[in-house]
Order: sequence, then C-alpha cells, then structure tokens
Amino acid sequence: MSTFASRHIGPQVDETETMLTALGLASLDELAGRAVPSTIRMAGELDLPAARTETETLQWLRELAAKNNPRRAMIGLGYHGTITPPVIRRNVLEDPAWYTAYTPYQPEISQGRLEALINFQTMISDLTGLPTAGASLLDESTAVAEAMALARRTVKSGSVLIMDADTLPQTVEVTRTRAEGLGIEVVIADGDLLAAIDDHDLFGVVVQTPGASGAVLSTAELRSIADRAHGKGALVIAATDLMALTMITPPGEWGADVAVGSSQRFGVPLFYGGPHAGFMSVRSGLERSLPGRLVGASVDSQGVRAFRLALQTREQHIRREKATSNICTAQVLLAVVAGMYATYHGPDGLREIAAGIHRKARSVAADLRAVDGIDVDHESFFDTVQVSAPGRARTIVADARARGVHLRLIDDDHVGVSVGEDAADDDLAAVRLAFGAAEEASGDHWGGLAGSQRSSDFLTHPVFHRYHSETAMLRYLRALSDRDYALDRGMIPLGSCTMKLNATAEMEPISYPGFADLHPFAPAEDAEGYRELITTLEDWLAEATGYAKVSVQPNAGSQGEFAGLLAIRAYHQAGGDDQRLVCLIPSSAHGTNAASAAMAGLKVVVVKANPDGSIDEVDLKSKIEKHHDQLAAIMITYPSTHGAYEEGIADICAVVHDAGGQVYVDGANLNALLGLAQPGRFGGDVSHLNLHKTFCIPHGGGGPGVGPVAVAEHLVPYLPNHPLDPRAGSATTPREGQSKGPISAAPYGSAGILPISAAYIAMMGPDGLRNATEHAVLAANYVAHRLGDHYPVLYRGHGGLVAHECILDLRPLTKQTGVTVDDVAKRLIDYGFHAPTMSFPVAGTLMVEPTESEDLAELDRFCDAMIKIRQEADKVGAGDWPADDNPLRNAPHTVAVVMADDWTHPYSRTEAAHPFGLQRGPIGSGGSDKYWPPVGRIDGVYGDRNLVCSCPPPEAFED
Amino acid sequence: MSTFASRHIGPQVDETETMLTALGLASLDELAGRAVPSTIRMAGELDLPAARTETETLQWLRELAAKNNPRRAMIGLGYHGTITPPVIRRNVLEDPAWYTAYTPYQPEISQGRLEALINFQTMISDLTGLPTAGASLLDESTAVAEAMALARRTVKSGSVLIMDADTLPQTVEVTRTRAEGLGIEVVIADGDLLAAIDDHDLFGVVVQTPGASGAVLSTAELRSIADRAHGKGALVIAATDLMALTMITPPGEWGADVAVGSSQRFGVPLFYGGPHAGFMSVRSGLERSLPGRLVGASVDSQGVRAFRLALQTREQHIRREKATSNICTAQVLLAVVAGMYATYHGPDGLREIAAGIHRKARSVAADLRAVDGIDVDHESFFDTVQVSAPGRARTIVADARARGVHLRLIDDDHVGVSVGEDAADDDLAAVRLAFGAAEEASGDHWGGLAGSQRSSDFLTHPVFHRYHSETAMLRYLRALSDRDYALDRGMIPLGSCTMKLNATAEMEPISYPGFADLHPFAPAEDAEGYRELITTLEDWLAEATGYAKVSVQPNAGSQGEFAGLLAIRAYHQAGGDDQRLVCLIPSSAHGTNAASAAMAGLKVVVVKANPDGSIDEVDLKSKIEKHHDQLAAIMITYPSTHGAYEEGIADICAVVHDAGGQVYVDGANLNALLGLAQPGRFGGDVSHLNLHKTFCIPHGGGGPGVGPVAVAEHLVPYLPNHPLDPRAGSATTPREGQSKGPISAAPYGSAGILPISAAYIAMMGPDGLRNATEHAVLAANYVAHRLGDHYPVLYRGHGGLVAHECILDLRPLTKQTGVTVDDVAKRLIDYGFHAPTMSFPVAGTLMVEPTESEDLAELDRFCDAMIKIRQEADKVGAGDWPADDNPLRNAPHTVAVVMADDWTHPYSRTEAAHPFGLQRGPIGSGGSDKYWPPVGRIDGVYGDRNLVCSCPPPEAFED
Repeated sequence: MSTFASRHIGPQVDETETMLTALGLASLDELAGRAVPSTIRMAGELDLPAARTETETLQWLRELAAKNNPRRAMIGLGYHGTITPPVIRRNVLEDPAWYTAYTPYQPEISQGRLEALINFQTMISDLTGLPTAGASLLDESTAVAEAMALARRTVKSGSVLIMDADTLPQTVEVTRTRAEGLGIEVVIADGDLLAAIDDHDLFGVVVQTPGASGAVLSTAELRSIADRAHGKGALVIAATDLMALTMITPPGEWGADVAVGSSQRFGVPLFYGGPHAGFMSVRSGLERSLPGRLVGASVDSQGVRAFRLALQTREQHIRREKATSNICTAQVLLAVVAGMYATYHGPDGLREIAAGIHRKARSVAADLRAVDGIDVDHESFFDTVQVSAPGRARTIVADARARGVHLRLIDDDHVGVSVGEDAADDDLAAVRLAFGAAEEASGDHWGGLAGSQRSSDFLTHPVFHRYHSETAMLRYLRALSDRDYALDRGMIPLGSCTMKLNATAEMEPISYPGFADLHPFAPAEDAEGYRELITTLEDWLAEATGYAKVSVQPNAGSQGEFAGLLAIRAYHQAGGDDQRLVCLIPSSAHGTNAASAAMAGLKVVVVKANPDGSIDEVDLKSKIEKHHDQLAAIMITYPSTHGAYEEGIADICAVVHDAGGQVYVDGANLNALLGLAQPGRFGGDVSHLNLHKTFCIPHGGGGPGVGPVAVAEHLVPYLPNHPLDPRAGSATTPREGQSKGPISAAPYGSAGILPISAAYIAMMGPDGLRNATEHAVLAANYVAHRLGDHYPVLYRGHGGLVAHECILDLRPLTKQTGVTVDDVAKRLIDYGFHAPTMSFPVAGTLMVEPTESEDLAELDRFCDAMIKIRQEADKVGAGDWPADDNPLRNAPHTVAVVMADDWTHPYSRTEAAHPFGLQRGPIGSGGSDKYWPPVGRIDGVYGDRNLVCSCPPPEAFED
Repeated sequence: MSTFASRHIGPQVDETETMLTALGLASLDELAGRAVPSTIRMAGELDLPAARTETETLQWLRELAAKNNPRRAMIGLGYHGTITPPVIRRNVLEDPAWYTAYTPYQPEISQGRLEALINFQTMISDLTGLPTAGASLLDESTAVAEAMALARRTVKSGSVLIMDADTLPQTVEVTRTRAEGLGIEVVIADGDLLAAIDDHDLFGVVVQTPGASGAVLSTAELRSIADRAHGKGALVIAATDLMALTMITPPGEWGADVAVGSSQRFGVPLFYGGPHAGFMSVRSGLERSLPGRLVGASVDSQGVRAFRLALQTREQHIRREKATSNICTAQVLLAVVAGMYATYHGPDGLREIAAGIHRKARSVAADLRAVDGIDVDHESFFDTVQVSAPGRARTIVADARARGVHLRLIDDDHVGVSVGEDAADDDLAAVRLAFGAAEEASGDHWGGLAGSQRSSDFLTHPVFHRYHSETAMLRYLRALSDRDYALDRGMIPLGSCTMKLNATAEMEPISYPGFADLHPFAPAEDAEGYRELITTLEDWLAEATGYAKVSVQPNAGSQGEFAGLLAIRAYHQAGGDDQRLVCLIPSSAHGTNAASAAMAGLKVVVVKANPDGSIDEVDLKSKIEKHHDQLAAIMITYPSTHGAYEEGIADICAVVHDAGGQVYVDGANLNALLGLAQPGRFGGDVSHLNLHKTFCIPHGGGGPGVGPVAVAEHLVPYLPNHPLDPRAGSATTPREGQSKGPISAAPYGSAGILPISAAYIAMMGPDGLRNATEHAVLAANYVAHRLGDHYPVLYRGHGGLVAHECILDLRPLTKQTGVTVDDVAKRLIDYGFHAPTMSFPVAGTLMVEPTESEDLAELDRFCDAMIKIRQEADKVGAGDWPADDNPLRNAPHTVAVVMADDWTHPYSRTEAAHPFGLQRGPIGSGGSDKYWPPVGRIDGVYGDRNLVCSCPPPEAFED
C-alpha cells in the first residue's frame, strides 16, 4: 500500500534516483551522511509511533473530537458562540486556494486576500470608529499588550499602565508578562478609574467595555476617562467587542486612541481558544506605529488601483533590539473569515444578530432577577449578565452543564451568563432552569444600553451590500481566490518559510464540531479529547526536538521565542543570576530574535558572522569573555539563515554553556533537521518550533501560525502558564509560580489547528519524517546543482552541500545587466511561480527552499524558468533590450497588458506572457492554465505617500 | 435573523421591489395570481414543517447520520469498501467548481471535466481491454440492462437473453424489469452456460466474473462461452469488477463484446447504494451504439486539440419512440472521482491495492476452511469468498455484526465474505472469530486466480503516471476545474435545467461517515438514520407534489419516468386492461418521454402542439377518440416545455381520465409550481421529479441526478421494489407482487445525496419554497421584459406572463444578419456566461431560465450582455463587420487568440475579449476576473469524423 509519506513527498522513487544521480550520490543515506555534521547527527530513529494511514489517523482524530463535549458555550470572556456561514466555512476555511497561500509580500499575486483584508480593516475601522485598522493581531490579549507597547513608544512620559479591573483576566496576565520585560508597571484599577488616573504617573490606560463582567460603561463615563487620561498625556486603549459595537458608542467617538479586541465571534469557530484574529485600530497620527501588518492601496505600473502591504513587519524588517514588539505575522485566514462574515451579513444583518443577542440577554436578566436570592449585578450590558447567587454558583454551573450549557463560574457567589449568536431557546430554558426560574421565558426584559447607544452608521461601503445571497458570496470568494497564487497552483520556493504540502487529511479534522466548537474555558472533563491531543502532540514534538517538554501555548513563532527567552531569564533569576541579561545574537539572525530578546528584558549583543553566514568563533569568544558574568544566552539558527549546516555548532554550544549561558536554537529551519538531528541533544536548552513550517499547518495567506516552545529539563518550571487553566504550564498561579506567566490569551494558543500537526506526525512516522527531511535537502541541492552555473550559490556548508535551502547570488548579474532581484522575482510570476525569499539574509540574493513536497517536474520547471530568465537578463546586459523596457523590468505582465490594442515593446506579446510558448498540460488548455496576475508591478512609493487602508470608494477604481 | 431562504433567493428585498416595479406589479402575490391559472392554484400553503436554520438542519442531519452504523462492509454484491483519497474528496466531491458544473454540452467551457472524463474512459477501456468506453452510466444493473438493449439493437436474430446465474441478484431483477417492456425473454442459466447457449435462440449472453459468489471463471472457460455465443450470432456481455481486472484477463481479451460494471470501489463512497458511476465499454464496431454519453477529442478553431461530447444523448436528442434506451445523463461527478482515483494511484498503485485485497481474501479462505464444518465453495476468486456453514449462516453473520463487520447472508447455509480496500487486520480477525477460527491469522493462503491471470499492461498513458503526490494531484484538480465555468463563476441560465444554488449546508452532510460509508444491503437496524431520512423526504415530496406516495429509487429523471409509466401499465394490467398501450405525447415534449414510453412497452402517439407550445385540444380529442380503448396515458410537461402556464391543463386531464387514461405530469418544470400548485391535485396520476433541478442536488458536471416517482393512491402498489430490501416498494418479491420490479441497482437509488434535498426543504419551509418559485417566475419575466425589445419572446402564457423561463426567438435575427444561435451562445462565453438552452424546444431559439438564485446584478449583467450582442449582430447585419470575421462568428476568444502577436480582425482585441472594457470588481483585478475559455470554438464535424475517445498520446497536443 502506498504510504502517506509517499504522497507527502513529491518525488516518486524514480525521481529521487534521478536527482541523486545528478548530484553524484548513491542514496539518501549518503546525502544525509555528507551534508549533516556527524557531531550533531542523532543515532537511530526518532522514538515515535510507526506511521498510520490516513484512514486510521482520521479515525483517531474523530474519536478524540468525540471526547470533547462542546455543549452550548455561554462562558464569554472574549470567546462567544457564533455561526460560521457554511459558504464561508467551505470556501475559505476548507479551501486550499485560501489556506495554502503565503503572506502577501508579493502583492501582485495576492490581490484577492489583500482585498479580503482591506474589507476586514474597513470593518474594524467602521465598528470601532477609528480611521486606521491593522490586518489583524494574534489574539485579544496580545493585542492589548501590543497596544501597551504602542503607547509606550508614543508617550514619552509616565511609567505606569492602568488597567480596568473589568479587563479579561487572561488579558491582564498576558499584559503583565509583557510589561515585565519592558519595565512597565501595571496597576489594576479596581472600581474608580478616574482616581487611578489621577494617582499615577501613567502613559496609558486600558478600559474594557463591555467588561469581563458584561458591564457596559456609559458614553459619558468613557468620555471622562478619556479626557482625564489625555489631560495627563496618556493614551486611552479600549478593549471591546465587535458585536456590541453595532449597538454601543464606538471607542473613536468617546475619545479612545486605540481600540483592540477579537473578531472571533464574527463567524470564527471557538477552536478551544484559537486561532482567531485579534484586531487593533488607531486614531489619526498613530497609523504608522501600528504593530503587525497593514494593508493599503496603491497603483500598479499601469496606474490600476491595487493593494499591498503598507506595513510588513516581516521578520527581517522588524525593529530588532529597539523593538517593543516582535510580531511578524497576522491571523489572515481568520481575519478573512471575520471580514467575510461582515460582508455576508452587511450592517443590517449584523444589527439584527446583535439585537437578537441583546434581547435574549435582557430576557435572561429579567427572568433570573425574579428568582428569590438571585440578583443581576449590572443594569447596563450587551450580551453578558453577571448574576449574584450567594453560595450557589457552583451548583448552578454544574446544573447548567448537565442541561447542556457551559456558564462561567466567577466565584462561589457569582455566575456569568453570556449569550452568543448560537444560543437557542432551549439553551436559555436550560439557563433559567439551572437558576431555578421557570423553563418558559416570562417575556419580560430588564437592563439595556441606555446612555451607551450608537448612533453612527457603519459598513456603508458597497462591498458590504453586494454579497448577501449565498450565490453572490460563493462567486465573490471564488473571484478573490482566483486572483491569488497559492500552493494549489504551483511551487512557492520561499527560503526559511517551508511552503510544503498541507495535506487534506491533516486539514479535515479541524472542522469536526468536537474540535471547532469547544470554548477554551470549558471544564476539563468536557475537553478530554483536546487534553489527549495536546499531551500527545507535546510529547511527540519533545521527542522530535530532543527536549524534555513542549508548550503549545505560543500562537506564533515570535511568541515561542519570547516564551523561550522568558524561561531563560526566569531560570537565571531563580539561580540568583539576575545580572545575566546579555543575549548574543549573530548578525545573520532573523530580526525577530533581537526583538524577542529585547521584549524579554535582555540586552542584545551582536556577534559577527563570517562571510559564509556561520558564526565568527573568535568574535564569539571575545564577546563571551567580555560579558562573561552577564551572559544570559545565545540565539542560534540552525542550520543557519544562510541555509548551511555549520560544523562548529557543538563547540559553540559548549563555550556558551561553559560561560554559564543558555543556548537558544531557533527552530525556523527544523525542516533540515527532523529525524536527522535533535537540537535538544546537540546543545540547545530551548527552541521554538514553527508548526506552520515543518509541521504542515498551512500559512493561511499570512497566519495562523503556531510556535510551540521546547525546553530542556531545567527550564520546564519556567514554561508559560495560564490563569484560567492550571493544566497549562507548571505553575497554577501565574504571578506566584516560577513561570513568567501566560504569553497568549488561550491556555493552549491556537489549539484548534493542532490536529494538523498531530496528523502529520502520526501519518509520517519516524521513517517518513526522516525521509521528508532528506528529500528537502535533496531538492535544495538539486536546485543548487542545476542553477549553480547560472547564478552563483552563495554558501555551501558541510560536505559542499547546502541544507534545505540555497541562496542564489544575483549581485553579479545586477552589476552586469542592471537586472535586479525585484525584476527576477516579478518575472517569475510571468512564468507561473511565486518568487523565492528576496534579499534575506543577504541583500541582492534569492533564497530558494523547494521543500520535500515538490516533485521533479515542478523543480525542473522552476530551474528552467530561472535559466531562461538568466538568458533574458543577458539580453538586457548585451543591449538587445533596453534597460528600461524589457520583459524583466516590465514584469509581471497582466492579461490586460499583453492583449492591449497597442503594443510598443521591443519583445513580443508571446515572449512577455508565454516565454516557453503556450503553456499547456497534456490536453489543450490554450494557454489558460497559466496563472495571470491581476495587476502589474505595484508602486510601493506611491502607496507609502498615500496611505489608504480601508476600502477605497468604487470611483477610485474607475479606469 | 436572516433566514436561509433569504440566502438561497438571490434578489434581496429592494431588488425584488425593483424587478416588480419594472414589470408593473405590486407584489409577488400579484405576480403569482396573474401568472398561474386559478384552475390549478393550490389553496393555502404546503403542509411542511416551518423553516429551520442551517445550524438546526445540520444538527438534524448529523443526528440522522449517527443513527446509521456502517461498521466494516464486507457484503460485496457490487458494493465494496474503498478509501476515497482525501485530496479527491475535498477537491472534487466537496468543491463547488466541480459539483455545480453543468453537463459539458458547451465543450469550450468544459475542458476540465471533459479531460477528467476521458481519463475515466481510458481507464475503463484499458482495464476491460475494449477500445471504447462511455462517460459512465447510472449503476451496474442498469448498465447490464443497457447492454442488453444494445445487443437487442445490434443483433437482428434471437429473442432470448441468457444470464449467468452468478449475476448480481439486483442486476437480474433490473434487467428483467427492463426486458419486459422490450419484449425480451430472460433465461437464467444455472450452472452450464454453454448448454443454455446451445438450447436457446439468443441474441445475447451476460456473464458475471467475478460472480456474485466471488467465483472467477478461467480465461479458457470464458473463451469457450464467447466462441459458442458468437457462433450463434449473439453478443457477449461481461459484467465485471475494475479492481479484479488489474489481476484477471480483461473481457476484451477473451472475446466479450461489451463490458459493464460499477466504478464505485475506485474511491467512491458506498453512499448506501449510490450515486456511483456505472461503466460500459465495447469492441470496435459498437462504439456508435453506446448508450449515454461519450467524450471524444476534436480540434478548435485554431487547430488546438480539444475535447467534446461525441455522443450527447441529451433529452431532446435521444431516439424518442424508437428508443431502446432513455438514458440522457451520466454520473460525471462520480466518474471523475473514480478516474482520479486511478490517476492518483497509477497502474502500480492499483495492482498493489488489488494484490492486498486478494491476499487478504486468500488468507480468510485458508483460515475458514480449516474450521470444522466450514467449507469454501470456490477455489478461484479475487476478493469474495463464499463459505458453506450448514445451518449456521445466520449466527455467523450476527456474530460478525456484533464484532463490527457486515457479511453477506446468502441463505441459512452460506455466507459471503468480501474484502475491500478498507478491510483492516482487525476486521479480518472479527471474521475469523465469527466463523470460529482463531483470532490470529494462520499465515496460510488458499485459492487464487490460476488460469485467469492478466498479462497485459494498462494505464500506460502518461496522465496515469504524473500525479502521484498529493501536491501534484491537488494542482491537477485545480488546473482542470479552472478551465471550466460552473455556478461558482456566474449564471448558467439553462432553460429546463434549473441551475440554482446548491447551498453548502445542503452539501456538507453527504460527507458525514454515517451517510457516506453505509452499504446498501446493511441490515435495517444499522440503517435507521437513512430510513428516517428517506421516509421523511418521500413524505415531503409527496406533499410538495400533491401525490399519495413517492419512491426515491429512480436515480435519474429518465428512470423516474420509466418507473411511472411501468406503474401505469401495471395498473391497467391489474384492471384487466392489457390492451391499454397507447401513450399520447405532445410534439413539444422532451424526447425522453417517448423513449421512456417505448421502454415501458407503450405505443407512442404524438399529439399536435399549437404554435405556442400548448396542446392542440382538437387533435388531442381526436386522438383520444381514435385510441379510446387502447388509451394508457398522456404525458404532459407542465408548465410546458415552452415555459408557459397553459390554461387548459385541467380540461386536458379531465378528458384523458374520462377516456380511462392516466395522466403523467413530467416534473421537469416543477420549479414553476412548487408551493403554488400541486400536479397530484390538478389532475396528475404520476409525476417524476428531478431533485437535481428543483430540489438542489447539484448537476455535478453531468450527474448524479435523482428522479423520484410520485403517484396517486391507486398507483401506489405499482411503485418499484427491490429483491434485497423488502422496505423498498410495496411488494416484497419483485416478480410476484404487483410492481414491475426494481429499476435501479440500489433499493433507494442515489441515497447518499438525498440529504441535500431534505436539507433544502427543511431550511426553506413552505413559505420559502413558495417564495423561491415566485422569484423564479419573477426573474424569468424580468429577463423577458428587459430583452423583449431586442429578441422577441416566443411564448407567453396566462396573464401575458411567462413561467420560470422564457424563449428568445433568434430566427428573425439570423435571417437579418446571418448570426446564428450558436454564434450568440459562444459569444456569451466572451461575456462570462454559460449559454442558455439552444434550439430547444424550438430550433433557432434560446431558452433562458434564470432561477430564483440569481440576484439583480447578475440578471442585469446577463441582459446587458444580450443587448450588446444584439448590437454586435446588427453591425454584422449592416455590413460593418464581415459575416465570416466578426466577434460573434469567432467567439469564443481565448487568451491565446487575443494576445497573439498578429491581429488581423476588423475589430479590436479589446472588443473581442472585453466588450464592456476591462471587467473588474470593486477593486482592481486588471481584467483577470474574466473567465477565459481554454479553447476556441470546437469543430464538431472533425471530431465526428475522427472518433478518439480515450486519452490521446501527448504528441497529439503539440503545437
């Protein structure tokens, strides 16, 4: 029987042979033996279960899902029942055209998801009443932490952040974790926010409305808070709820500078806590300080309106050691879902849904108040009713659970009842019965939103009024995804990003209701399937990396780094080494490394890299010498960002350890190691992994990501924990244990997509994983071999071989011909490819990572294209084509360009669009199999000068 | 809350108003009141449950699915456990680009599925060893019946069909049902086929190998049978198994003329019996007699190789009253799945799967034989072991069931054990235990395929060697679907085909394992969910149509017709009216009507139609007069095929009834009636429905269909039944009850897709259904109103209004300008539309059925395109453009054509491809949102002269 591994790995047996032969190798074993230094090579196989079939794995995950019991989630706390419109579930969440796409760094081939994101931004901006919204953040709690950092960057005075005591508990703790590294004091203002503002030297204040208790502050109260804070020069951060904002005064109208929250309840499944798209919007003047990504409008080479990322915050772009944020991703797939939910419902539909929720909450409030001994704590609320039931809270929550409803147990005397879009009459009846009220609703209503009501319009743009039938929405989603290039069309050979297969059998389980519909704070006995999944996956990942323990809480690689560095810092502190604050980082590292170190309160010291990207051991030793007693850690990427296995890695680890430092091995390039070497065994103390790279979580067009942190035994006590789930992390009380606290809103981060990686490991087995790594290395070496004569391969490591990626040096070509990296990257679009990573880690180069999933035909198609492009460049160099009018400079060519009635270029239309002649498959496809970019090369400078980050009016797109 | 109906119905409230206003109507009520004759209008609403939400409906269907218990199906009898590769499930079965496509009658916009079908045909042809295979049939049993009819047409002598007694029991009965109408005697040859051939005056013989018992005949035996039959001038029909054919001598090599079977076990879920793609292949000389559809290769206007239907057998093309087949559909979606399964596995993968199955069967045989009192009946078998266990069969089957395995109970003394691809070691252990053998396999093997082994190659074409990784398969599927135009891109305004929304919430449940994985002959207690679903749906459909009872067994509209006419005939026979054989059919009817009547043994008498398509009542009365005592029935389509509500319908029913005839109301146009009128109440005795029209089962690119038959009380005893399921139909023993027997292989036909229609009715409720009908009528009238000045609307019915479709008369235009229906249809592709129905029911016209699902923007886009095309035609008429070189004649324009380096046409490239300028949505899509046909206009004559119906060699597609 063909194994799953034989489907995941692109080259079939004969193709592997062909590639090995081309490299003069006899076997994959020989390749691995030559490429990987023996000093790090593991003995034997990973101790993981033997490969299971797709059928067995789906059965296993179906059984796990069945062990979760979602019931009706009425717990609230930032996570609400919602209804994902099936047309969006199937055609976004379950559609490879959306989920296999990469981050839209190549905007010409990403117009579909960029439009979807600008819809999301417009929705956030409209609902919050603030002009500029980013393209999403990791979750609500980190969004608050990011807002704190933004305020810190913006306001030059003050040292205190005041937080409303009614802020979500997980947000308070995540913010405190983040504040510690940044040297910020967090003050929780219980009750009187105005007094707290008066009493402290603050730079920011966080107000949550509706609050965790459900209470909604009046617009007048909020205005006073904002005025008072502004009077002291501080920024006002509103943590809020999108659904409520259809009914209550938006933050921008009462004076907030920043609004943050989660867009989960706009159609994104609960997913046991994530992934969901957090959001942030800001007032005018702060837009260029937004953390994360921001989509903006610009124009292309033909003057056609087009979208692009106005802020990228790519790992190599972020602010390194000066950073107050290390965020370099977004939650694109989920932001698309949330934006489409708003597009599908439109403003009237959203108002109707919100009004239905509010009416139900008011009905519950009235009926519970009528029960003896029960009281409702706040009269002003949107969806959440906080109920006083002295001494009876536990019984009530247990009773409701038995009736199929999860309520929030606040304490022995208080229960929270939070109404979601999905709450049915039966659920409300169950709630009434649990509190001892009548099963039937009385018809009474109590409480409301007096003094808070919104009067302004929102979602007035036509895009929110056009796609209200399922047919129209289906076609809109198809049209958008058709504009984009994703893995379902061809290779995305992005160095360091590992764009490999996201297999269907891995993806299917995330839609199972048992995984999709569980609230993150559901009681443990209703989450046994997740427990088993998470424990299993953490164990497997620990074995895969050779560490003692893994935490899946970090919901992005950057968060994993941050968590790992916090563990190191806490470890030193526990050992009395408070002064160990120096973090060595090679100059060739991802920018994120330095940013994460800075956030963890460490001091970054840069170690020189050799020209080949390896660490300069002389400089390293001198830096260690210099900072000996202060040395906290070194952060190493292995294989290096230059795509080579370094010989000296074991030595480097040893000298750092000898000096009392810890070794952080960045797991970005784990796809070159898995099954061949374990970072935890060759010297690492901590690593983070990118499940969206090596472990097949799809990139989703720019998120979700999952970045588990893996640590050696001595660091286990310092892993992240969570205030609402004692099973997450080793200490039960965040601020009292040894851990620095939680770093994500949800105890297990993006739990909902963990089945993907679990399925991958289960189906590959130890053999399959090693085989995949060997094929990834084989493919990179094959490409290096085929292209080496046309573009110098910048670095080769051990055995004269590259690791899983190779860097093509374009600088000589640029010098000779004027053809730039950008020209080649855009020209590749005409050939039907996504460009490799550009100018990282070395300016003027392309870094190619083909992965194990591309078959020989696709690898050859890529190499052929690159060779032909080289020939084209040479024609420019030889003067056959002018430097400012040639197929490279004019790339990519849209269909509008090549079929224009006038054609004035010195090359033909066919050369422009079909350099190899009409592309076609085995049957006649008349050139239509080609991917056509919807727009030509985008003018970044124009976009930078004219920042437009919400849906432009339709007139803007007239010809 | 927005209802599902508001999503299903395209126009939103304000758009409905706009359309009503344009028509001078105040309300939908007024529209219905004016359009529908009061004589047929129903009082009140349909008695159906109130609309449920999508969430409630999905929950309901999930619960029903959970009431089915598939266990491991080892029953065999033509239905086998299989593993659908997840990449194919998600990207074909669950992908709107595949399932919402129409039949590929417009080949220029169907190249993707045509290629997929030619892969299927090649696979069938290769595996059966016969040169020409059709594009699929409804199921294995009807394929045998079709083969019988083919033999009957081909062989001029003989009156007997001999059937091997080891033929599947359902096939025997379906064939007998079919034989009766055609006047064929079926002889079951028990044991000695050679003797039976000698003894009878036969025209054909059916040999099943492997047989129902699992027995495989030796190649030598089969050769003798074929030689003996050929010696008597008869055709040899082999019913066979695709998986077995990877190992045993294919029918084409031992002398069979025709091979038939099911492709279910090539990755298509069991679906409780269907839908699955039946197949037929034939020897050279018989290819033009193939029933159903046949895909062939041809060339387009540029000489590019392209695919098209070589045989269409569209309803209006079939052989009418001379027919021996009424088949006018295929099982495209399932054929695509089966073909892709072969493409994904390739010949080596298929051999490996088959060998695994065979090995397991041999192991089971060895271990069961070793048990005291147990014997295995045949030594030569592939996957099915027939076991003798005297007196113990029931106990064993019950025991196996308790252990999670369904076996076949043959009789008290015999059990069938059939191994599928999905049989795991645990399942085999359960089988061993049930028979009293050891749990562990002994390791012994017994039996085999000596004397039957295949030596020839198969699937040697490159297409079967290219897509073996999941990445490669994903991209292949995407590339193919990208070539096609389906409902996910735009309107398909096909008159009489009702291409409306196939909502996601309707589609999702068919993938639930409880629905997908159940064997049709699983015991009733393990199929309770299906029982409830089928009963509920049958009841709802009976109410919707006003009849007493419905049978969902017919798996195509044509089969429903056949079943309905058989019921009429049986009814007359039961009443002693054997002579009532005349079936009146209006000249405007679908060709299928006459074909079905002929197959039911009725004599077709044509009744004249008036120029407006209505029945000529004078002629009707004279025909009734003439055939008074012979009158069996009249078949009426209502509203008529001309898309108008006829006034006289009630009178017509009355005169036919008065003459002792029955009234058959063809349900093809039920989308104009649902909720407004019930055929069973205004005069019909029988109707068939097309669930793939009015009840939202997707067209799947040309199948599956479901064609339930609905009858009045007096016809209930004559509904189809089934030999293996006494609950299907009113008589338990097919040949002894009043029913004429089964007409489909499975008791409930295409049971697996019935959740779609059930979900539709549940979510729409009576209001929603009526509202949809009104909107369908509104849309047709709106289009007629907007286009009436540009193209005469051929017929209007009651109230000066059309029903749910309208006929645009192009004959005057053709006369004036030379522009043909074909030109307009192909030109619509350039505008991004699928053509309306061409030249049916009147040559030289286009019939437009917009359905209720298209919103106003799309209706207007279509009308604008049609008006612009009229203007283009006028330019041709005026001589501005030559008759042989204009955008209409040259349509459709491929991207290759409009970007050719030379352009010689008298119109511009932009006029060719973007007649309204660059099409773009609210953001810049640079013309890329346009659907580009992969090929230009296809040369049908060339294809007819050069019949190529399997994958052409790659060289054939070189430029």
